[in-house]
Amino acid sequence: MRNSTRSGVDPFIVMDVMEAARKAEDAGRHIIHMEVGQPGTPAPEGARAALAAAMGEDAMGYTVALGLPALRARIARLYGEWYGVDLDPNRVIVTSGSSGAFILAFTALFDTGQRVGIGAPGYPSYRQILRALDLVPVDIETAEANRLQPVAADLEGLDLSGLMVASPANPTGTMLGRDDMAALMEAAAAQGASFISDEIYHGIEYDSKAVSALEISDEAYVINSFSKYFSMTGWRVGWMVVPEDHVRVVERLAQNLFICPPHASQVAALAAMDCTEELEANMDVYRVNRQLMLDGLPAAGFDRIAPPDGAFYVYADVSHLTDDSVGFAKEILEKAGVAVTPGLDFDPARGGGTLRFSYARSTEDIAEGLRRLKMFMEGR
Amino acid sequence: MRNSTRSGVDPFIVMDVMEAARKAEDAGRHIIHMEVGQPGTPAPEGARAALAAAMGEDAMGYTVALGLPALRARIARLYGEWYGVDLDPNRVIVTSGSSGAFILAFTALFDTGQRVGIGAPGYPSYRQILRALDLVPVDIETAEANRLQPVAADLEGLDLSGLMVASPANPTGTMLGRDDMAALMEAAAAQGASFISDEIYHGIEYDSKAVSALEISDEAYVINSFSKYFSMTGWRVGWMVVPEDHVRVVERLAQNLFICPPHASQVAALAAMDCTEELEANMDVYRVNRQLMLDGLPAAGFDRIAPPDGAFYVYADVSHLTDDSVGFAKEILEKAGVAVTPGLDFDPARGGGTLRFSYARSTEDIAEGLRRLKMFMEGR
Repeated sequence: MRNSTRSGVDPFIVMDVMEAARKAEDAGRHIIHMEVGQPGTPAPEGARAALAAAMGEDAMGYTVALGLPALRARIARLYGEWYGVDLDPNRVIVTSGSSGAFILAFTALFDTGQRVGIGAPGYPSYRQILRALDLVPVDIETAEANRLQPVAADLEGLDLSGLMVASPANPTGTMLGRDDMAALMEAAAAQGASFISDEIYHGIEYDSKAVSALEISDEAYVINSFSKYFSMTGWRVGWMVVPEDHVRVVERLAQNLFICPPHASQVAALAAMDCTEELEANMDVYRVNRQLMLDGLPAAGFDRIAPPDGAFYVYADVSHLTDDSVGFAKEILEKAGVAVTPGLDFDPARGGGTLRFSYARSTEDIAEGLRRLKMFMEGR
Repeated sequence: MRNSTRSGVDPFIVMDVMEAARKAEDAGRHIIHMEVGQPGTPAPEGARAALAAAMGEDAMGYTVALGLPALRARIARLYGEWYGVDLDPNRVIVTSGSSGAFILAFTALFDTGQRVGIGAPGYPSYRQILRALDLVPVDIETAEANRLQPVAADLEGLDLSGLMVASPANPTGTMLGRDDMAALMEAAAAQGASFISDEIYHGIEYDSKAVSALEISDEAYVINSFSKYFSMTGWRVGWMVVPEDHVRVVERLAQNLFICPPHASQVAALAAMDCTEELEANMDVYRVNRQLMLDGLPAAGFDRIAPPDGAFYVYADVSHLTDDSVGFAKEILEKAGVAVTPGLDFDPARGGGTLRFSYARSTEDIAEGLRRLKMFMEGR
């Protein structure tokens, strides 16, 4: 039996870091985890309580493919609360994490061989999912002057069928302002490219609220998730908002590709949406951690950074220190006992000179990690 | 924004039946559900208790992409218990339901335009997932003499890159014997076609144990699920066993396409595997229901049926009564208050003359459904 060509996706480089960290821990070392892309906190207590109660009352079989009607309605209401957008619940599609939403969006919109623009640096799985579906990811090399976000002028001549943006972005944490987002949507539409907005870090913002593509136009696929702000990564539940005339097509795909998102996760997610106090307490931690990073990283010698607008990452230019971020990350793990992510996962062209630091864990961990990084750099 | 060509998958016809049934219930009518493809029972009590406990102890973030190591080990052990097969846990991949396994298997094995054989009648989503991935489903019209299972001779000249079989099958409940399965695997290999065995109804068998493809050869993808025997449809957790040299490729795809299967569902699934008493009590109900069906359907006039070897369906030839199974199912719903599935979902060519009756619900419901069907047919 042979494997297909489309299955030849790249490995996550960070997985090697995580494996090396695990081995070091097995050997008795204490490692600070700045490589992780997820909160250290569990699903909100109210979410877990709601699930515990539901498990005693209901068989929890398949839900309808588009998700529990109450959850779709509650998500629609969130668009009123967060953005002042009046959203029809029928346009909300509950998905098996944002991963499920990417698969649905890409299959609903693109045919084999079509070109889909993605920002570099960016979330590595965009590229790999597109490849697995026999689509062509087109890296848009973003400029530091644009805070590593694509701008409308970047699209010229790319002949795209789709454009995927993320704001706040992984790994940079930078956001697209309303005007920039609108200009990108217009430029995409001008070349007949469908617009997909990854908004999975919404809610984790610092100075200003992130802009949803839905504030600008209904002609977009908007993807979000319960993983980050709602602290539910392992539950694999997210959502997607699509134009009204796309709902039926996505529904049929969802019925066949997924049957439904996990029922238990949907029940927990619905309750999580009203756990504001606990979620805002998590935000308080991220705010403190962010400030620690913005002070501590430059103090350690990682001074080529931009303050993140959202998410829980700092993306550092270390090209003056190395052109081998993988080797550098390995050295930091070995010598400092801090796991970090090499930039090559996010940017195949320039990532040899960058690192991503996550501050999603506890403040105590972040403080200790920064101490270790400073000592390591001083001794280098 | 346009939808892709690949997204033009067929709707599930049974969804219209379910919607009509829901409307009838909203209007105050009592409907017997023989259209459902899932147990009416919840996840085993032990599974729910394990999850309730875990929720208090662990943040339950992402697991590794291939699933919790303890669950992979326990699944490997099941192959010893059920089939006497010694299976390396490293070959076990926990998936987001069998749906997730289909997506992984098809992308890992097949490139755009390749032909994959599937039995007709068969599970409708095989065809639609293949289409969504720009693969070519090739219907193998099975013979009644072969109990509606494909046989090796059917593959001649089909030029397949893959062959997908299901035993026990949906909608017929018929199984492939060891020799027939081996002959199919050989015939597939002879034309260079990868072999995929859908074994999601294993455990729900009546007279003899179902044969796993792994009893015959390691050169197969074997897909199973916690949905049916383990009564966990809504939890979206299943598994796949692949040849050893395919594990890394599938792992990379799984990391990118799914990140991981739902953590909570994995915890519940692990505990479910030791809830034998409750699961066997469910089996006792299916056994009683099956006998009721085998007596009651012919008595009602649905006498062109074959006793199912496994699963919880009876597939009836009603071509002497109608060539419009969709209209017939509608009539049965309206006049008898029994929801059934038109065969067109399973067999585009011949399904106008067939119906699928499910006996997955309570014995009381099945008995009442059969009474209603008899009265309806007598008055016709």
